[in-house]
Amino acid sequence: MTGVDRIVYRPGPGELAHTFGARLPVAHVRSGDVLEVFTQDCFGGLVRGPADLPSEVCRMPYLNPVSGPFFVEDAEPGDTLAVHIAAITPARDWGVSTTFPHFGALTSTSRTATLQPPLEERVWVYGIDQQTRTVRFQATGSDHSVDLPLDPMIGTIGVAPGGFEARSTIVPDSHGGNLDTPQLRAGATLYLGVNVHGAMLALGDGHARQGEGEACGTGVEIATTTTLIVEVVKGVPTPWPRLETDMSIMSVGCARPLEDAYRVAHHDLVGWTSALTGLHVLDAYQLVSQAGRAPIGNVCDPNYTVLAAVDKALLPVPGAAYQGAHGRMRRLAAGLR
Amino acid sequence: MTGVDRIVYRPGPGELAHTFGARLPVAHVRSGDVLEVFTQDCFGGLVRGPADLPSEVCRMPYLNPVSGPFFVEDAEPGDTLAVHIAAITPARDWGVSTTFPHFGALTSTSRTATLQPPLEERVWVYGIDQQTRTVRFQATGSDHSVDLPLDPMIGTIGVAPGGFEARSTIVPDSHGGNLDTPQLRAGATLYLGVNVHGAMLALGDGHARQGEGEACGTGVEIATTTTLIVEVVKGVPTPWPRLETDMSIMSVGCARPLEDAYRVAHHDLVGWTSALTGLHVLDAYQLVSQAGRAPIGNVCDPNYTVLAAVDKALLPVPGAAYQGAHGRMRRLAAGLR
Amino acid sequence: MTGVDRIVYRPGPGELAHTFGARLPVAHVRSGDVLEVFTQDCFGGLVRGPADLPSEVCRMPYLNPVSGPFFVEDAEPGDTLAVHIAAITPARDWGVSTTFPHFGALTSTSRTATLQPPLEERVWVYGIDQQTRTVRFQATGSDHSVDLPLDPMIGTIGVAPGGFEARSTIVPDSHGGNLDTPQLRAGATLYLGVNVHGAMLALGDGHARQGEGEACGTGVEIATTTTLIVEVVKGVPTPWPRLETDMSIMSVGCARPLEDAYRVAHHDLVGWTSALTGLHVLDAYQLVSQAGRAPIGNVCDPNYTVLAAVDKALLPVPGAAYQGAHGRMRRLAAGLR
Amino acid sequence: MTGVDRIVYRPGPGELAHTFGARLPVAHVRSGDVLEVFTQDCFGGLVRGPADLPSEVCRMPYLNPVSGPFFVEDAEPGDTLAVHIAAITPARDWGVSTTFPHFGALTSTSRTATLQPPLEERVWVYGIDQQTRTVRFQATGSDHSVDLPLDPMIGTIGVAPGGFEARSTIVPDSHGGNLDTPQLRAGATLYLGVNVHGAMLALGDGHARQGEGEACGTGVEIATTTTLIVEVVKGVPTPWPRLETDMSIMSVGCARPLEDAYRVAHHDLVGWTSALTGLHVLDAYQLVSQAGRAPIGNVCDPNYTVLAAVDKALLPVPGAAYQGAHGRMRRLAAGLR
Repeated sequence: MTGVDRIVYRPGPGELAHTFGARLPVAHVRSGDVLEVFTQDCFGGLVRGPADLPSEVCRMPYLNPVSGPFFVEDAEPGDTLAVHIAAITPARDWGVSTTFPHFGALTSTSRTATLQPPLEERVWVYGIDQQTRTVRFQATGSDHSVDLPLDPMIGTIGVAPGGFEARSTIVPDSHGGNLDTPQLRAGATLYLGVNVHGAMLALGDGHARQGEGEACGTGVEIATTTTLIVEVVKGVPTPWPRLETDMSIMSVGCARPLEDAYRVAHHDLVGWTSALTGLHVLDAYQLVSQAGRAPIGNVCDPNYTVLAAVDKALLPVPGAAYQGAHGRMRRLAAGLR
Repeated sequence: MTGVDRIVYRPGPGELAHTFGARLPVAHVRSGDVLEVFTQDCFGGLVRGPADLPSEVCRMPYLNPVSGPFFVEDAEPGDTLAVHIAAITPARDWGVSTTFPHFGALTSTSRTATLQPPLEERVWVYGIDQQTRTVRFQATGSDHSVDLPLDPMIGTIGVAPGGFEARSTIVPDSHGGNLDTPQLRAGATLYLGVNVHGAMLALGDGHARQGEGEACGTGVEIATTTTLIVEVVKGVPTPWPRLETDMSIMSVGCARPLEDAYRVAHHDLVGWTSALTGLHVLDAYQLVSQAGRAPIGNVCDPNYTVLAAVDKALLPVPGAAYQGAHGRMRRLAAGLR
Repeated sequence: MTGVDRIVYRPGPGELAHTFGARLPVAHVRSGDVLEVFTQDCFGGLVRGPADLPSEVCRMPYLNPVSGPFFVEDAEPGDTLAVHIAAITPARDWGVSTTFPHFGALTSTSRTATLQPPLEERVWVYGIDQQTRTVRFQATGSDHSVDLPLDPMIGTIGVAPGGFEARSTIVPDSHGGNLDTPQLRAGATLYLGVNVHGAMLALGDGHARQGEGEACGTGVEIATTTTLIVEVVKGVPTPWPRLETDMSIMSVGCARPLEDAYRVAHHDLVGWTSALTGLHVLDAYQLVSQAGRAPIGNVCDPNYTVLAAVDKALLPVPGAAYQGAHGRMRRLAAGLR
Repeated sequence: MTGVDRIVYRPGPGELAHTFGARLPVAHVRSGDVLEVFTQDCFGGLVRGPADLPSEVCRMPYLNPVSGPFFVEDAEPGDTLAVHIAAITPARDWGVSTTFPHFGALTSTSRTATLQPPLEERVWVYGIDQQTRTVRFQATGSDHSVDLPLDPMIGTIGVAPGGFEARSTIVPDSHGGNLDTPQLRAGATLYLGVNVHGAMLALGDGHARQGEGEACGTGVEIATTTTLIVEVVKGVPTPWPRLETDMSIMSVGCARPLEDAYRVAHHDLVGWTSALTGLHVLDAYQLVSQAGRAPIGNVCDPNYTVLAAVDKALLPVPGAAYQGAHGRMRRLAAGLR
């Protein structure tokens, strides 16, 4: 690393992207750089109150915009891009969640197609208090409100996919994208396999918080200022998105049906654990089977997301993943505050 | 309640059951009774070391035996049986886990049928230390051992199904059965809809601990002495198994594919929350979507299991579920120690 | 074979069964016997016109009744019961189909649970003309009627399951049951693995015809007089239901998700083909991949059904399946007319 | 239509495409034009014998190449592109099929991920005889060969997807793509919704024949000369690919799990039937449920494919679909010979 730059990016009008891939970069970053990005919410900021029904105020495919892509110097196919989330700050004092016709886990959808009329579309506006670190739920059809913990996350982050593809930002897959997992909070490092020259990192779709599975189809959707640190790990491929925190390593699986997302994540974590520690693959399978966690990300997007997680303290040789990228960036992030 | 009896049951030779339904009761219990039951492990105690491959020492269908059924007086179809788990004590100082041909999440199976040879069958023996509350993993193909927290649970518990059915104890469904969720630990109350005269409660398949999804197909399988308190909630039906702890209410969904298990659990929790609190059903959907947890039970049994959970503190009127059965039995359990 | 008896069975009041397993036999039959059975329709004959909504006139679990079980002498676990369908005659000049709340392929269901109101329940009455071999569709909300070919089939046929289970007659699985495939027409021989002493064959749920997948949840439901010939094939196990016609052999897979039903059927057909002909298993896989058919049975029952079929003329040694049971019973059936 | 041109296109070196979308057109065509296209096989012609294992001779992502895209004049988003398949002629006297590591219905895959070693990779070479209209299967591990009917089809055909996406040619979805259904034979008209200016039609991946589901992951793969006629149907959107033959109309569903592909296809066919004929949607549901066919396309690609089909003779007003495009192009095609 030859010096740390802080790149600040705020997308101008018309600059937001709706795909991963097939977009020209908006800025260049280098390994070790700090990147501060404004991200718009998944509705493009157009849903601000109960009357702003997404199906009326939003226009397909202009949903779930991301900021970027950022060209990462020296990132080539076969490398891994390590992205540390240093901070996610809500950009406004409110967030919003909605039902949406034929989208969500408890409704028929364009794929789970039925002849029933769609579920009612409705908007919930949440107050966000950064002092108390709370998000306030207010019922719309009954008299109840309650504070939930503020737990900001990035819903959508990824690189350009391989195979010359360009994928909608609604889609999570091996290139990342709309992973929609609460594990993507500050303090986590995301590892993404690089598919194209320059990686082409982009992100958006912040949530003030989200339940497991994002049942209604949306989290508490917010605009954010998100601070990242990036590092290129040369010559190390990464087949599926992976996460590292101080405590755990995690693999992300995206697929339908949901059990395939579970299989992908656990297959990757077992293989990763075995490669990282020298454990026989069946021993890794056994250890993950008894000690693993499997938090569900989303059960509403074009691919569903499940994570497989295991604590590093349980493994023979903890902490050496990706040449120590997590620890290095974690320390760098601590120095930023 | 007209007095508390403590029924102690230890199955004699040949007395273990392999179905829910179509079995005569082994004992009678009444609302408020304390039931202390010895449960055998899922291998019938026949897998004791690395050489005891389940496919050789066990004989189908004599797997996953349960103790019972217990006839619960005054339990009739349309009622709910509330079962509080007061204690789960490992009966031995060891437990065992195995792979098993064509069973588990990361292998082809009898249903996800492929032409590949089966994954290798292997046995792991765990030491259990009740003083330190630990379970010791010992790798078999590499040199690594590590202590995991002891967290005993009951894998299989249920009542006779309706519709004159008798279901293998391997199966989880709306009658309970092989739910295989770590949430079934001491301190939890399980609500089961009664389908037949006397409910016919049975249980077995203890685990010293289990990861989410039970990826390899088994937990750390143990025999236990399990202490339950039962109560009949008259005139209240329960469509799917539900759980209550001091902190949360949870619904259990069992289905394939895994997203249907998620849907069943969340559909039930949303409806339960709405009925319990008066929240509009869409408000309940929204609150669960942002504040809910969705712990995966199993991704290996004939039906997969997902839970939907929400904290009672977030609801308008907490704690009144099932006429306060959980709190009542919780206090009774506290007096047992 | 030591003589052919013709057993005629018409269930008396209250004699219909709603499970496979856990029922005492209604009659005994021997290998080679001809069995003539009256079967009631899936609604128990209670839906006779537009006003007879199934959810109102039928009572759970008294749906989909079967006639039997028949104790087959000399049938023991590990044997195969070959059942040739000699004739299926509609018992009335009408049949009926309906939508049903939360049942069917294009509606949310108890498992694919959504928060939407159920699809409208509606009844269609079909006229059946055995002279012209037609079934007359009459639209209910528009002015259109059209004749469809009469193509009678048995929706539900099976033996007692193993493992001491009793399964609802709504369920298709390895024991047969509610397979709901149009391939179960006169001229076909069904092979079922015997799980219990006496096999315990039962059948019902005739359809005057049915589209592939039974999208709305029901076929053109009819009562029938069905003529069967049974034969016990000693010492030959059958893991999943299989069919043989003059032209083809077919394996039946029952599972969720639907791809697992496809996998089960094709895995079985590939193995069956290989064992029957000596083809290497990968050659059998290849031949089935290019020459096979995969007719969908149902996409609405608790397990979905897919068949895998290949023409006997394409195989090295055609026609020797199950010691020639199909041909033998086919000739016997021809003599009956 | 203002005159019929015949455009002949044979891709030059490096001209084949591996995505739908994000490619510049190779030629322009107008409504009514005849397009004669050489298509390479799915292996790019590199698998020619038993020693040419695809995983060795092919390089990802250079599989499943398509010829095109063709810019269709006057085709705009919201229109439908009608593509009539006039002829599919095998370009060589051989075809080839293979297993492929972790691809196919009876193997674990990158999504249905297991810890088992992959199934053996093997190549089958088929002789194609256009005189006898046969395809000759030759076993590789046993001594058996047999002639199958030649039944050429186009596996992959589609337009650029919407939402700025570019999708791998391996993927079938609402834009068409790798549908892999035997119904795409000469005589069929395919309707595709136009998503981008000029539609951007491309095609490839011919099969000399294919079983339902393409179980092993490939058909009898061939290069072809394919003759198409195209027509733009202005102002008529098409949500999912549809097919019309002289006998039937069909909708194509692409999704995972397989039941969702079934649902998509049947939901579309019911809606199409209702819109085309004035039948009440529940009457259309009923008629399709009893008279419909549901041929499976593929159970191996990133999305599975199921079709829903109904005969036009059964509908109130047959044949008027898409302003008679099928009949018009059918007659034009007849004049070509």
